[in-house]
Amino acid sequence: MKEFVTEHQSPYLDLSAEVTEILYRGKSDFQDILVADTKEFGRMLVLDGVFQTSIKDEFIYHESIVHIPLFLHPNPKHVLIIGGGDGGAAREAVRHPEVETVTMVDIDGKVIELAKEFLPEISRAMLEDDPKLTVKVGDGIAYMKQSKNYYDVIIVDCSDPVGPGEGLFTYDFYKDTYSALTADGIFVQQTESPFMHQKLVKDVFSCVSDIFPVTRLYTAFIPLYPSGMHCFTLGSKHYDPLQWTPSRRRSFATRYYNEGIQRSAFVLPNFVKDLLYGAKAR
Amino acid sequence: MKEFVTEHQSPYLDLSAEVTEILYRGKSDFQDILVADTKEFGRMLVLDGVFQTSIKDEFIYHESIVHIPLFLHPNPKHVLIIGGGDGGAAREAVRHPEVETVTMVDIDGKVIELAKEFLPEISRAMLEDDPKLTVKVGDGIAYMKQSKNYYDVIIVDCSDPVGPGEGLFTYDFYKDTYSALTADGIFVQQTESPFMHQKLVKDVFSCVSDIFPVTRLYTAFIPLYPSGMHCFTLGSKHYDPLQWTPSRRRSFATRYYNEGIQRSAFVLPNFVKDLLYGAKAR
Repeated sequence: MKEFVTEHQSPYLDLSAEVTEILYRGKSDFQDILVADTKEFGRMLVLDGVFQTSIKDEFIYHESIVHIPLFLHPNPKHVLIIGGGDGGAAREAVRHPEVETVTMVDIDGKVIELAKEFLPEISRAMLEDDPKLTVKVGDGIAYMKQSKNYYDVIIVDCSDPVGPGEGLFTYDFYKDTYSALTADGIFVQQTESPFMHQKLVKDVFSCVSDIFPVTRLYTAFIPLYPSGMHCFTLGSKHYDPLQWTPSRRRSFATRYYNEGIQRSAFVLPNFVKDLLYGAKAR
Repeated sequence: MKEFVTEHQSPYLDLSAEVTEILYRGKSDFQDILVADTKEFGRMLVLDGVFQTSIKDEFIYHESIVHIPLFLHPNPKHVLIIGGGDGGAAREAVRHPEVETVTMVDIDGKVIELAKEFLPEISRAMLEDDPKLTVKVGDGIAYMKQSKNYYDVIIVDCSDPVGPGEGLFTYDFYKDTYSALTADGIFVQQTESPFMHQKLVKDVFSCVSDIFPVTRLYTAFIPLYPSGMHCFTLGSKHYDPLQWTPSRRRSFATRYYNEGIQRSAFVLPNFVKDLLYGAKAR
């Protein structure tokens, strides 16, 4: 008898992956947590029934959410990651030689603990106590409120805007993020699918546009996530991704990211442009 | 009790869409055919259990497979479509004012008939007897063999390389395609997912590269298809998509395609470059 783990990608659409072994099933103070080995995606982390990351495709998400904002900045010294409990974003951020400190604040210590136990490839920087990395278990919203003019890049690697991630999709949070950044700082947040979650994408883009002088959306192919078309909203105080030219050499190998992707990720299909800017803007 | 239609995207991964109504379920001489209304994707065509097209996302596939090769050619007069029985590729091809004839050859007349009955938005050019369009029910392999030096663009809009589509993924077929093209002709074929079907993508690319002086892969976000990351292999006798500059104005509206996409679709993530060219080529 085959066992499957299923995400309800919408009320009307299910993605089901065959499981070879359930490694952990439990509850933290914040959410239901499942770690399972699957045949198609390898080991997977599932929070509140939503597929978060998998060994097979995690490189796409983590390289996209980290290297695109970091390479947009000519000299990113201090990086803040809100969420990112699996450690994948931290792993990518510490690879930049210019980066001096990476601070990660995740509300759920249980996710961090399980990632270290079951997902060592992803949690490597946490596991190896990378000297650049500080991991804090706590409330990202409160942390952001008390940070001022310090971070060069802030990465919000959160779950969907239901459950613990909810307060990370608000005007006040984006305002605090703006204040926590230096004068030429860059902020990025995962914002679901422009094909399936159009209201969220439009609302976040409009909200971030009210606060940041430069707001851009970029996309990546993420097979594990609904529709496979995922997007990230980027708010920047100074640097514009549409004017990007390489300001420093990439000194490490990547599996998804490259300098062509740094530009092409911001090229949007017409239906996404229409969603963000209205059909008249084209 | 909810009813679902399920595609086994791999032996280990299922995508299931809730159905509101089954409109047709039957068998042609070539395959099992299902037409169903679903809540997430609208009306869908399913052949041998594989999701072929949906009202909600068909524009992405059809615009990608047609407009990218057609706009690469400065003056495409004669277009051949092999497969494409739903009529979506023909609908997009006839929109180019430069195109004088579109010939479509699909082996399964039943698919054409059902598309006209149940998918009028997609089959429009067939339904309205567009004067540029000739629809033939027949064997695309045989048709290709007897065509010489005539078509400017050939589009192979086929199902997967199992069942009736199998012979459309062979060296001999690509050889015949080369011969059927004019001296500066362009060929494109849908070639599944570079994330999930790596052997196929690599084999087709290598085979087409043996025959055509310019061979390129491009991608599109297609939510209905496995992994959402779909690709197309393009073989060209003269024009190189990496050197593209607009040679004529686009006179019609599109929902996915634009001039930025014409370029960015060919920008490949590192794991795809490695698959096609080997890791050493980077």
